[in-house]
Amino acid sequence: MTDAVDQQPWQWDETTWRGHVEKVRAGRSLLPDAPHRWPGDARVAVALSFDSDYETPSLRDGETSPGKMAQGEYGRRAGLPRILELLDRWEAPSSFYIPAVCALLDPEEAPRYLERGHEVAVHGWIHERNTQLSFEQELELLGRAVDVLTAQTGVRPTGIRTPSWDFSESTLEVVKQLGFAYDSSLMADDDPYELLDRGERTGIIEIPVEWIRDDAPVLMMERFQGLRPYMPPRQLGQIWKDEFDAAYAVGGVFQLTMHPHIIGHRSRLVVLDDLLRHIRSHDGVWMTTHADLAAHVAPGLAR
Amino acid sequence: MTDAVDQQPWQWDETTWRGHVEKVRAGRSLLPDAPHRWPGDARVAVALSFDSDYETPSLRDGETSPGKMAQGEYGRRAGLPRILELLDRWEAPSSFYIPAVCALLDPEEAPRYLERGHEVAVHGWIHERNTQLSFEQELELLGRAVDVLTAQTGVRPTGIRTPSWDFSESTLEVVKQLGFAYDSSLMADDDPYELLDRGERTGIIEIPVEWIRDDAPVLMMERFQGLRPYMPPRQLGQIWKDEFDAAYAVGGVFQLTMHPHIIGHRSRLVVLDDLLRHIRSHDGVWMTTHADLAAHVAPGLAR
Amino acid sequence: MTDAVDQQPWQWDETTWRGHVEKVRAGRSLLPDAPHRWPGDARVAVALSFDSDYETPSLRDGETSPGKMAQGEYGRRAGLPRILELLDRWEAPSSFYIPAVCALLDPEEAPRYLERGHEVAVHGWIHERNTQLSFEQELELLGRAVDVLTAQTGVRPTGIRTPSWDFSESTLEVVKQLGFAYDSSLMADDDPYELLDRGERTGIIEIPVEWIRDDAPVLMMERFQGLRPYMPPRQLGQIWKDEFDAAYAVGGVFQLTMHPHIIGHRSRLVVLDDLLRHIRSHDGVWMTTHADLAAHVAPGLAR
Amino acid sequence: MTDAVDQQPWQWDETTWRGHVEKVRAGRSLLPDAPHRWPGDARVAVALSFDSDYETPSLRDGETSPGKMAQGEYGRRAGLPRILELLDRWEAPSSFYIPAVCALLDPEEAPRYLERGHEVAVHGWIHERNTQLSFEQELELLGRAVDVLTAQTGVRPTGIRTPSWDFSESTLEVVKQLGFAYDSSLMADDDPYELLDRGERTGIIEIPVEWIRDDAPVLMMERFQGLRPYMPPRQLGQIWKDEFDAAYAVGGVFQLTMHPHIIGHRSRLVVLDDLLRHIRSHDGVWMTTHADLAAHVAPGLAR
Repeated sequence: MTDAVDQQPWQWDETTWRGHVEKVRAGRSLLPDAPHRWPGDARVAVALSFDSDYETPSLRDGETSPGKMAQGEYGRRAGLPRILELLDRWEAPSSFYIPAVCALLDPEEAPRYLERGHEVAVHGWIHERNTQLSFEQELELLGRAVDVLTAQTGVRPTGIRTPSWDFSESTLEVVKQLGFAYDSSLMADDDPYELLDRGERTGIIEIPVEWIRDDAPVLMMERFQGLRPYMPPRQLGQIWKDEFDAAYAVGGVFQLTMHPHIIGHRSRLVVLDDLLRHIRSHDGVWMTTHADLAAHVAPGLAR
Repeated sequence: MTDAVDQQPWQWDETTWRGHVEKVRAGRSLLPDAPHRWPGDARVAVALSFDSDYETPSLRDGETSPGKMAQGEYGRRAGLPRILELLDRWEAPSSFYIPAVCALLDPEEAPRYLERGHEVAVHGWIHERNTQLSFEQELELLGRAVDVLTAQTGVRPTGIRTPSWDFSESTLEVVKQLGFAYDSSLMADDDPYELLDRGERTGIIEIPVEWIRDDAPVLMMERFQGLRPYMPPRQLGQIWKDEFDAAYAVGGVFQLTMHPHIIGHRSRLVVLDDLLRHIRSHDGVWMTTHADLAAHVAPGLAR
Repeated sequence: MTDAVDQQPWQWDETTWRGHVEKVRAGRSLLPDAPHRWPGDARVAVALSFDSDYETPSLRDGETSPGKMAQGEYGRRAGLPRILELLDRWEAPSSFYIPAVCALLDPEEAPRYLERGHEVAVHGWIHERNTQLSFEQELELLGRAVDVLTAQTGVRPTGIRTPSWDFSESTLEVVKQLGFAYDSSLMADDDPYELLDRGERTGIIEIPVEWIRDDAPVLMMERFQGLRPYMPPRQLGQIWKDEFDAAYAVGGVFQLTMHPHIIGHRSRLVVLDDLLRHIRSHDGVWMTTHADLAAHVAPGLAR
Repeated sequence: MTDAVDQQPWQWDETTWRGHVEKVRAGRSLLPDAPHRWPGDARVAVALSFDSDYETPSLRDGETSPGKMAQGEYGRRAGLPRILELLDRWEAPSSFYIPAVCALLDPEEAPRYLERGHEVAVHGWIHERNTQLSFEQELELLGRAVDVLTAQTGVRPTGIRTPSWDFSESTLEVVKQLGFAYDSSLMADDDPYELLDRGERTGIIEIPVEWIRDDAPVLMMERFQGLRPYMPPRQLGQIWKDEFDAAYAVGGVFQLTMHPHIIGHRSRLVVLDDLLRHIRSHDGVWMTTHADLAAHVAPGLAR
C-alpha cells in the first residue's frame, strides 16, 4: 500500500478507498419479518424525535451573543411546552436527545420527558464537533453526558444521537465502549440495520436519520452562513407525509427528527399537528420511541 | 474558573457556559392575565413594524455604489407612500424604526409617521454593527440617534430596535442608561417579557421579533453573499397568516417586521394587503404600536 | 471634512454619507400625466427586455471551460429562436441588450432583432465589471460597443444597460459623454425618472429594473457560488403577474428583464408564454421597447 | 496575438475570446427529419439516466467520514432496488453512468443493469475532477474505467458522461481517443448534436444534459457548502413535466439525469413515479437508452 499522505483521491489504491468506504457500514437489515412485523400487528412504525439543543449549537461554535442565546432559549421556553402538549394530544411517545449542558441548564427537563412517556437519550456534552476530538476526549465527554442524564432521570440512556449527526473515526468504538444499544446518526437505509465495524458485526443497532426528515436543513436561519428558511413549512409537511405514506405502503419505519427551537414556532407546529392528524387517520400505526423500536428489532441481531 | 482564552467550548467549565447563557435572558412573561387581557377585550394584539433602513445597511458595509443606493432609495420613494396608504386603509397603527441618518436624509419622514398615528423609534445611527463598537461608542451613537428623532418629532422615543437585531455585550446596559421602556431585538418568546441582566430584573420590556416574521431573510437579494429572494411572497404570506392564526387562538401577540425597500414592491404589497384583510376579518383584533403594547403590559413588571 | 480613509462608516461626517447617497439619485418622475398617459390611451406600458449575454458573463470571470461555454451557447442556439417566435406571436416588441462580443460572435443577430421590430441596445463589451475599470477604460469599452452595434445594424443605439446592472463612479459621466438617451440599470422607482448627478439634472432618462423582475437571480445555476434555481418557474410567473397587475391598476410601467440562456429553456418559456397571455387578456396594454418608452416620456424632462 | 497571461478578459483580443468560445462547440443538430423521426413513428424520445455515484463524490473531495459514506451507501442499498423496480413497471429502459470504483464495490451492479435492459456507461474512475488532471492522467483514468466496465459486463461501453459534467481542455481529445460514440455532459441544445473541435467536425454525438433536468442541484444537501434541498420535490416534478410536454409538442428529446442516492428517497420516488405515469399517458413515446438514441441519430453525422 502506497503512502496516501500526498495522494489525490484518484491516485488512491484499492486498499485505501475500500478502507474509507468499509470503515463503518450497514450490515443486515433489522426489519422484522412480515406478517406480525410490528407490535399489535401494526402496519408501520413511527419514531418521532426531538433534539433539544437550544443554545448549545451556538455555544459550540463560540457564538455567545445574547441574540443567538435568545434564539435557542425560545425552544425551551416557548416551543417545548407546546410540543409536549401536542404529543400528549396525539398520544405520540417520542425520543428526546438532549446535550448534557442543556440538561444542566434546566434539571427538570429530562425527568419531565420520562414522566410523559418519552425517551431521554444522549446528544453529546455541549453539541461538540466530535470530528475535532481525540478518542479519549470523545469518550470522556459522552461518558459525562451519560452520567448527567442517568443522575437526573434515574435511568441510564440506551441510545445516542451524535451532535449534528457527525461521526468521527472513533465514534463507533466510543458507542461500543459506553454500551449503547443503538445509535441514530447515520443514513444508509430507511429501516434499522446492524452497524459493521470494518466488516465485523458490532451488535449495535442503527436507527437511520435523514436530512429530508429533519426540520433544520430547510427551516434554519444561519445569518452569516447564508442559510435561510426558504422552504415553506407546509411544503415540508407534504414531503413528510409522502415519506410516511411510502413507509406505510411497505410496512417500514417512518423516522423524523425535529428541534424545539425550530419546529416549535407557531407557523411550524401547524405542520406537525397536521402530520400527526394524517398519521393518526391510518389504521395500524405503532408510535414508538427509538429505544423501544431498537428493543423490538434487536432479536434480528441474533440471526 | 479556568482561563477560557485558549479553550474550546467543550472544555469550558460550568461558570463559563452558564455565564454566556445567562448574560441576557428572558424573565417573567408580561402577557397580561386573561380575560380582559387586551384593551377593549380584544382577543389578540397585532404589532406591525417597519425598519426604514433604505441606504444605511449598504452604507454601514461601505457599499456605496449607485446601484446599492438606488435599491435603498426605492423604499423611501416608491415603497413607503404605498405602505402608509395601505396602513391608513386598514387602520393599522404601526411602529417605524428609523436610523438617524435616514431621518436626516428626509427630515419630514419621522414627523409624518407621527402625524399618521404611527410610532417613531430608534434603529441606530447608520445601521451600525454594534458588536464592533465599544460601550462608549455604542452609547454615543444611540444617544445621538435619540436626539435626532426627538428634535425632529418633538417626542422622545421610548423604544429601540437594534440594527440587524444585533446585541453586543454592552447593548443592554446602553438601553438601560438611555432610559428606553422597551427593546424589540431578541427572540426568546412570542409574547413580551422582562429582560434579565445576569439574572437581575431590569424593568426593560422585550417585545420579541423573529426571522420568520420578517420580510428580509427570505426576500432580500444580496448579490455577492449568495442571498436570493427564493421564497415566493404568497407562500410567505401563508406563513404569516399561520403565525397570526396561532396567536389569535391563544390570545397572544402577533408581531411582524418589514422593510419599505423590501415589502414595498408591488408583488409583495399584495401579500401585506392580503394579510391585513385576513387579520381584519377577525373580531377582537387590537392593532397597536410597539410602544402602546409595551405600555399596556408594563404593569406586569411590578408584580 | 475629515479624511475618510481610515474611518468606519459610523464615523463618517455628514458630508461623507450624504456624498455617497446623493452621487447618483432619482430626480423627477417621468410618468406622464393621466389621462392620455400612454399612446392610444393605453392603461399600462409593458417593456420587456432580454440581455443576450450567452458566454460573456463566464468569459468576463475567466471561466472558459467547454461546459460553461455550452451553457451560454444554449441561449443563442436553442433559446433565442423560441423567444423571437413567441414575441412575434404575442406582438410584443422588446429590447435586446447585447454585449459587443456576442454581437461579433453572430453578426446576424443584432440586425435580426431590428428586422423583427425589436430594439438593439448596449450591454458592455464582454459583460465587463465596470467597477474595476478606470473612467477612460469604461468610456473606451462602451464606445467600442456602440460602434460595433451601429456598424452591424446601421442604427446608433440610444439606450444602455450596464453589465450586471453595475454602476461605477464613472458610469453616469460615461453615459452622458456617449450621448445615450436613457439608461436601464438602476432601481429607485417602478416608473421612469430623470437621473441626478450630485443633485444636478442630467437629462438622462432612467427606466428602472429590479431583481424581482429578472429571471437570473432565482433561476440561475452557479455551481461554485452556491446559487441554485430553487424558485419553481411557475411561482416566479405568479410574482410577475402580480407586478403587472399592480402596474395596470395604477397605470404605470411593467418592466421585465430576461436572458435567452435562462428563460429560454422549455419549462421556463411556458411561464413567459403564460405571462404574455395574461397581459394580452387585458385591454389597453401598450407593449413597447425601452427606447420608445424613453422617447414617450422624454417631454417630461423639459418641465 | 498579445500575451494573455496578465490580461483581464475585457483586454483580450478577438483571437483569445473566440478561441475560448470555439474550443468545443455545437455543430449540426442530429435531430432526424420529421416525419418518421423516431422508431415506431413515436412523437417524442425519452432518455432517462442515473448517475450511480454513491460514495464517490465525497471520496473525490477527500470527505471520508462514516456519515458521508452512509449517505452514498443509501443509494446502492435502498434507492437503487426501488428505482429498478419502478423502471421495470413503467417499461423504461434507462442509462446508468457508474464510476469504476462504484462498479468495483459491487461487481454485480453493472451486470444487473444490462440484464434488466438498461445501458451501462462510463462516469469516471472515482468521480474525479478532470479539470485538475493532465491529458495523460485523464486518458489513463477513463481508459481504466472502460476496462473495468467491459470486464464486468462483457460489453464495451459506447458512451461517457464526465463526473459532474466537467469538461477539461483535454476531455474531447480523450473521448475521441477512447472511441466513444457519444458524450452526455454538455448543454448547448435540448436535442443531440455533433461536437466540433475548434470548428472541426468530430463525429462525436452529444446528448445534452441540463441542470434543470437533474435532481442534484435543487435536492442535494451539502452541509458545509450551504446547499440545501430547498425545492419541494413535487414542484420539481412539475418542472420536469413541463420539459417533457414541450419536448412532446415539438417532437424532440426529453433527457433526464438522476442519482439513486438523491431521487431514491421515498418522498422523491413519488415524483419520478408520477412523471412516468404522465409520460406513459401519452401516445407515441419512445423510451430509450442514451446509447440507442445515439445510434438512432448517428446517420445524421454522415450528412
